[in-house]
Amino acid sequence: MRDVVITGIGSTRFGKLKGRGVQNIAVEAANDALSRSGIERKDIGALYLGNFAAGPLAGQEVLAGIVGDEIGVSGIPCTKVEGACASGGIAFRHAVLAVASGQCDAAVVVGTEKMTHARGSDVTAALNNAMDNQSDGPSGLTFPGFFGLAWRVHAEKYGTTRDEVSSIIIKNKANGLNNPLAQMGAELTSDIIEQSQPIADPLQLYDCCPVSDGAAALVIVAADRATEAPDQPIRVKAAIQTSGSARLAGHESLCSFKTTELAAAQAYEQAQISASDIDLAEIHDCFSMAEVIHSEDLGLVPRGQGAKWAAEGRTQVDGQIAINPSGGLLSKGHPVGATGVGQLYEVVKQLRGEHPNQVNNARLGLAQNVGGAGVACTVSILERTDV
Amino acid sequence: MRDVVITGIGSTRFGKLKGRGVQNIAVEAANDALSRSGIERKDIGALYLGNFAAGPLAGQEVLAGIVGDEIGVSGIPCTKVEGACASGGIAFRHAVLAVASGQCDAAVVVGTEKMTHARGSDVTAALNNAMDNQSDGPSGLTFPGFFGLAWRVHAEKYGTTRDEVSSIIIKNKANGLNNPLAQMGAELTSDIIEQSQPIADPLQLYDCCPVSDGAAALVIVAADRATEAPDQPIRVKAAIQTSGSARLAGHESLCSFKTTELAAAQAYEQAQISASDIDLAEIHDCFSMAEVIHSEDLGLVPRGQGAKWAAEGRTQVDGQIAINPSGGLLSKGHPVGATGVGQLYEVVKQLRGEHPNQVNNARLGLAQNVGGAGVACTVSILERTDV
Repeated sequence: MRDVVITGIGSTRFGKLKGRGVQNIAVEAANDALSRSGIERKDIGALYLGNFAAGPLAGQEVLAGIVGDEIGVSGIPCTKVEGACASGGIAFRHAVLAVASGQCDAAVVVGTEKMTHARGSDVTAALNNAMDNQSDGPSGLTFPGFFGLAWRVHAEKYGTTRDEVSSIIIKNKANGLNNPLAQMGAELTSDIIEQSQPIADPLQLYDCCPVSDGAAALVIVAADRATEAPDQPIRVKAAIQTSGSARLAGHESLCSFKTTELAAAQAYEQAQISASDIDLAEIHDCFSMAEVIHSEDLGLVPRGQGAKWAAEGRTQVDGQIAINPSGGLLSKGHPVGATGVGQLYEVVKQLRGEHPNQVNNARLGLAQNVGGAGVACTVSILERTDV
Repeated sequence: MRDVVITGIGSTRFGKLKGRGVQNIAVEAANDALSRSGIERKDIGALYLGNFAAGPLAGQEVLAGIVGDEIGVSGIPCTKVEGACASGGIAFRHAVLAVASGQCDAAVVVGTEKMTHARGSDVTAALNNAMDNQSDGPSGLTFPGFFGLAWRVHAEKYGTTRDEVSSIIIKNKANGLNNPLAQMGAELTSDIIEQSQPIADPLQLYDCCPVSDGAAALVIVAADRATEAPDQPIRVKAAIQTSGSARLAGHESLCSFKTTELAAAQAYEQAQISASDIDLAEIHDCFSMAEVIHSEDLGLVPRGQGAKWAAEGRTQVDGQIAINPSGGLLSKGHPVGATGVGQLYEVVKQLRGEHPNQVNNARLGLAQNVGGAGVACTVSILERTDV
C-alpha cells in the first residue's frame, strides 16, 4: 500500500438548503474539491459516494453514477456505499484503498444528504432504518432512546451529571458559531439546555443534533502525484472501518461501542501513534452522550471521564485534546451521508492551519464516524507532514 | 494483484419467499456459501453486500453489518454497496479487490432483495429510484418504457421482429424450467407471448422479468489459500465495473449501452481473452430487448443480430454461445440486489460441470450485471482452471 494524500476539498454549508437536490449539492461539493485538487478529471479513477436516505426521502438511488456523470468522470467505477451515519467515512476509506492499492492514482469521495425538505415523521422513519428493526423495532426503540439509556448507565457507573454533559453542548454550540459551514451555532447555558423540550429522558432538545442537508467532497491522490495541488496536501495515516452489532442487546455495555474501540486500536496501529499524539478529533456527537462515549472509546479521555473532561475545559479548542472544534454534529449539523466526509474536510482545514477555530500547532487529526447504534465505525487519522 | 478464486457458493430459490426477511435470506445464502468454502469465519476479512430497495420496501438499511453480525464475522469491514440492479456485481468486484489487493485472504459477497411482499405501486416506485428522476422523472418514463423505446430503435435500424425477440423469451423460460432456483420457467410459444398483456408498447407481459425475492452469496479466497475447499475453486479472471449516464438523453443510441461496451473491453483485456473465447454468459435480461442489446454490446453476437441469433438457436445451451442457460432474469427472476451474485453462482455451477442446463466443456463464463438505464455495469469473467 502506497502513501496517499488529500488535495482538493469542498463542502456546502450544512443546514437547510432550500430548493436544492441531493445530487446537486453533491455535484457542487465535488466540483469545488476537484477545482483545488491539482488533478484533471481524466486522471480520476474511482468515485465513492456516501448516502443514506435519498431512496426514501428523495426517491433517488444510483447517486454515485449520476454525480459521476454530472462532474464529468463518467465511465469509471462510481460506487455508492451505505452504512447509515457512517456512510461518508466508509466512502472515504474505499477511495483511500483504491488509490493506496494502486487501482488508480486519484479518486473522488463525496458524501451527500438532503433531509430538511421531508416531513418530520418521514425523517424519523428513515433514520430508524439504521436500527435492526427485526430485533429492536418491536420495542419502539429510537436513537434518542438508545442514547438516553446509555446516559443512564454512564451516570450510574461513573456519576456523570447533567451539568457535565451540558458542557459538551455549550462547547460544541460555541465552536459552531465561528464555523461558516455550521447549521446551528449558539451561545448556550446549562439553564437553557435544561429548560429545552424533553426528547427521550434524560435527553433534552439540545442534546440532539439537528436534521440537516449538506454535501462534502475530497480528492484522494497518490502522494507522488500531488505535485500540482494548489493547497497543502494532507497525508492519510490511517483509514479503518469496522462493524458491530446493530442491536441494543448486542452491546455488552451501553457505555462503550466495541466497533469504535476496535477501529481506534487498528487506526493507531496503522498510523503508528497512540491516542495521546492526537491534536484534535472530529467525533460522532449525534447526541451529547455520544461524544462522551466515543471520546472514551477512542482513548482520547480516560474511561468514565468524557463529560468531566469537557466540564473542566480540557476538550476545548485550546484544551488538552480539542474535540469537535468544528462544532460537531450537534452544532455543525448531521446530513447523514455527508457527515463523515465533512469531518475530514474540517480536519484538513485544521492541519493546514486554516480553521476558524484553529488548534495551535495541529499535526495529527482524527475523525470518527459511527453508523446506527454501532453497526459500523470508521476512524481515520490525517497528518500535516511539513512540521 | 494476486490470483483469486471462488470457493463456497450459496443461494436461496428466487421467487416469492413468503414470511422471510431481507436479512434472513441473506444470512441463509451466506452461511451456505461459508459452509462450502474451506474457510473459517475468523479468516474472513471483509463482507460486501449488494442491496437496492430494503430501505423503502422493508424499512431496513445497514444490512451489511446486520448480516455480518448474524453470520459470525462481526468486527470486520462490512459494506453495503448500491448501484440499482448492478448492486450484486459491484459487491462482487469489491470483494475480489479486497482479496486481490491483499487487504485480506478471504471475503464474503452477498446479494439480497425482498420485493414480493410489497404493494405493486410501492415496488414500481422503488424501482424508479434507479432512474435519474430529476431529469427523466417529469416525462413519466419507466424502465419498460425505456426498453420499449430501445426496441423501436433496434427494429428500425436492424429489422428486428417480434418473433425474433420472442425466441429469447422462449429460450430463457425453457432454461428456467430445469433450474431448481428459478422463479418462472415455462413452455411458451410466440402466440402466448403476443397475446399476453401489453405493458409498454411493444413490450408484452412476457418481455418483462418478474418481481422477485432472493439472496445469493460467494466466498472469495486468495488462490493459494483455497486448499481446503471441498468443491472445485473457480478462478476470477476479470472483475470490471464501469459507469454511464442514468438519463435517457445521455445515450447516444438506445441500441447500445456505452457502460457495457467499456466494461466488456476492459474485462476481455484483464482476462487476456476475446469475446469469442466465452463459452457461456449470464447477462442482464431484465427485458427481452435487454438481452438483445447486451449480447451485442458484449461482442458475443454481431451488432444488430442479437435477436436473430436467438431465433436461429445459436444462443441455446448447445448453441454457438450459450446465453442465460440459467433462465436469466426473465425466468430465474430478478431480486434486484441479489441478481449479480446469483449470475456468478450460476456461472460457477457451469464451470464445475454441475449445472442442470450444462454447457459442454465450459471453461470460460461471463456475467454481466447492469444498473438502471446503464448508470452502472459490471462484467466478470470466471475460468475453470483444470481443463
